[in-house]
Amino acid sequence: MNFIIKNVLIVTDDDYATVDVQVVEGKIAAIAPDLDVSGTVFNGSNKLLLPGFVNAHTHSSEMWQRGIMSIFPLELWLAELYDFAPLDPEQVYLSALGTATETLLSGGTSVVDHLVLIPGQELETIATATRAYQEVGIRAFIAPLIQDQSLAAGIPSGESAQTHEPYFRSTAATLEIIEEAVRQFHRPDEGVSMLVAPTGIQLCTDALFEGCIELSDRYHLCRHSHLLETRAQEKLAQEKYGCTAVEHLKRIGYLSDRTSLAHCVWLSDADVAILAQTESTVVHNPLSNLRLGSGIAPILKYRQAGVNVTFGCDGASSNDSQDLLEAIKIGSILHNVTDLDYQHWITPRQAVEMASLGGAKGLNMADKIGSLTVGKQADLVLYDLTNLSLLPRTDPIGLLVLGRPTNVVDSAWVNGKQIITDGKVTTINVDNLRQELFNCSQWQTKRKSPTVAQLELHYRTVMGL
Amino acid sequence: MNFIIKNVLIVTDDDYATVDVQVVEGKIAAIAPDLDVSGTVFNGSNKLLLPGFVNAHTHSSEMWQRGIMSIFPLELWLAELYDFAPLDPEQVYLSALGTATETLLSGGTSVVDHLVLIPGQELETIATATRAYQEVGIRAFIAPLIQDQSLAAGIPSGESAQTHEPYFRSTAATLEIIEEAVRQFHRPDEGVSMLVAPTGIQLCTDALFEGCIELSDRYHLCRHSHLLETRAQEKLAQEKYGCTAVEHLKRIGYLSDRTSLAHCVWLSDADVAILAQTESTVVHNPLSNLRLGSGIAPILKYRQAGVNVTFGCDGASSNDSQDLLEAIKIGSILHNVTDLDYQHWITPRQAVEMASLGGAKGLNMADKIGSLTVGKQADLVLYDLTNLSLLPRTDPIGLLVLGRPTNVVDSAWVNGKQIITDGKVTTINVDNLRQELFNCSQWQTKRKSPTVAQLELHYRTVMGL
Repeated sequence: MNFIIKNVLIVTDDDYATVDVQVVEGKIAAIAPDLDVSGTVFNGSNKLLLPGFVNAHTHSSEMWQRGIMSIFPLELWLAELYDFAPLDPEQVYLSALGTATETLLSGGTSVVDHLVLIPGQELETIATATRAYQEVGIRAFIAPLIQDQSLAAGIPSGESAQTHEPYFRSTAATLEIIEEAVRQFHRPDEGVSMLVAPTGIQLCTDALFEGCIELSDRYHLCRHSHLLETRAQEKLAQEKYGCTAVEHLKRIGYLSDRTSLAHCVWLSDADVAILAQTESTVVHNPLSNLRLGSGIAPILKYRQAGVNVTFGCDGASSNDSQDLLEAIKIGSILHNVTDLDYQHWITPRQAVEMASLGGAKGLNMADKIGSLTVGKQADLVLYDLTNLSLLPRTDPIGLLVLGRPTNVVDSAWVNGKQIITDGKVTTINVDNLRQELFNCSQWQTKRKSPTVAQLELHYRTVMGL
Repeated sequence: MNFIIKNVLIVTDDDYATVDVQVVEGKIAAIAPDLDVSGTVFNGSNKLLLPGFVNAHTHSSEMWQRGIMSIFPLELWLAELYDFAPLDPEQVYLSALGTATETLLSGGTSVVDHLVLIPGQELETIATATRAYQEVGIRAFIAPLIQDQSLAAGIPSGESAQTHEPYFRSTAATLEIIEEAVRQFHRPDEGVSMLVAPTGIQLCTDALFEGCIELSDRYHLCRHSHLLETRAQEKLAQEKYGCTAVEHLKRIGYLSDRTSLAHCVWLSDADVAILAQTESTVVHNPLSNLRLGSGIAPILKYRQAGVNVTFGCDGASSNDSQDLLEAIKIGSILHNVTDLDYQHWITPRQAVEMASLGGAKGLNMADKIGSLTVGKQADLVLYDLTNLSLLPRTDPIGLLVLGRPTNVVDSAWVNGKQIITDGKVTTINVDNLRQELFNCSQWQTKRKSPTVAQLELHYRTVMGL
């Protein structure tokens, strides 16, 4: 469908301009004042048009446990998470719809789902999430979360000699699942891309990373992983490799200009230089890093070193939302307390570019999405500047990034297809989704994780608590 | 009006209960299952009832500059703020309505407005804000922001000898204005209380503090002030007093169990002990502290020392919103990165108590509001647990505090009077307010503060930048 947005505010280098934006066959065809009308006309008056943001790291099925997870650091939190992980593909479907909906309503048009797989139903899990995202119409990057070591291996041993159960599925079997998923579901032109995505050095062998590199090269897939989210992982990397995790990942060849790395809280200055040199992307998940007490990722250092940085909500059990504007706000202002010199602080305009073009770069899509550029795909979001939360009128980008925008997304298009109209997702029935989420859940107050009970004492000892 | 909320979820010591809540003549008259109906009946099914929160520190007229303020530390930010401060009482009226509305829609039923006074129209400013809050029906604590030294005096001198213009209004004249405002507007029983509120040690003489103490004692007023928001203020206190600001305020008698202190970022351990001993309240403004790079207030230390802590949004130019749930979320999880031991972290239930009872304590109102207790005023908020942002159903308080609740306030009452119904403020026309805010403003991108141009070099020098 072709359409034109008339008289809409867009961001220019250091100002705004009022223009028309013409979209033809899913691509931005022209941006200029007073264009001739072609196709459907949208009134852009008192609205701001931005490229869609990328929710560059999340785990959709965590939505089922948002609000209820204990106030724990990552290692114990993960143990609790997995003790109560949803095991029904129908749940995967609903939480993917929910994740897509909340991402869209906060300005995102792409989502990277580091997808937790139901054991024994791995391909079905991937198929289900793919179906959900295609129904909604959000651009989906599905990164099946894989590991080949058991959960307890993710905690440093410290002085004690720890042995761990082998993981229930072999490395080879895991890689076969991923390759099959790529064959079945990797359709970038249809808005669904698969990524290789080992969970991280804490739970993966080199063989798994190497198999993923091989698949990435053969099928031109982007690479994703968690990286140095916690102090414990920093410790573990030294135990495991005798060097930092970044040095090790560089050595085995995992880092590249299509590799995005979630968290990156505990990196040395030398590690930062490696990320810059390999053109890897950092996905900053500020809310999850605070909630789990992981730390404040040194984002200003990354930017100064020329590392590409973008934002993610992370899974809704560690946030506990999928509001990208919230992640962008906190991910910008949080760093002002880490550097006395305000000239280094992230401005609202920089934050918007990190969330859009930065996200695109991390997915090797910078030539296709991430900015309002003629020839790029029309992944667009139109914000209503007459909403109370964006008034009085001052600087629209400042209001959007630093304020607390509520119900401000008027319209959104992915690949030129409109999926939000008048503030409502039109491709699925959100009221039905709400009802289903209600019906499939119960208010709970108390639950105890047996795995936490097993691990907590060792964790406290090894972390000096 | 008498009413009863039937079958509503309330928080108990470590669980929830479904009860009826009866309100008679503005007070909570009974809380129990299966009460007899008296007055209007509200259906509480699938809803959570909490005491209203206190937005314990804000500056309403900053709403006019939200989104546009430069990314500066406090001292330069203040210079820009005052260069463009609104000077029309009509603006004060609209931004007070806006502040009240956003506070109510995010769970607040009380607001402490550290109100910026228009020079020469001080009493009119106070009268206007009072009128706005009474129209909305929110419980208002008006703390006229006063100082008796000029802005430049708030920056440490460092090695250089700095002299400053005298402030345009004498200390005595300022105190007379406050006393007159107390006579005219201090009506606690009608929901409007006046506070004495010197802006802080950085811009006030001892004479001003002492005059405020005297008024506070004579008229039984609570006391408010900013305290040690920035490193610069810590430095300044040493220059000015040769001791910490807290030691000085204790010496002159400003600290008490009805004194609330905004920010408290740069306190020593000895200072913390003084706050505990004097039973002063800390108002934590996490978003503003991040936005201005002020630092992370040591809230876990305050709680461990037994200091009462509550939350504020701070003015909308340093936040840039008035969403209390956002302040509560960030003000809880932010501190997890300051203490490795997760057993010290703030739980969602603790956060709710800090925001409600903690706020009441800081205003010397703990016997009247801040909890669901028979005999207390009915300052109540009813949350809709079927909202998408609070689904799937898990732990309601966890979802409310750690999630990103949107449009979740179904109803709110202040002193038993309903002011939100079906998610809408009913006492004023919010659509008109929106239109007025739109009409009275213009999108702007560039402006330069002349005072920043004067101060910046000195600021950078003195702060070692």
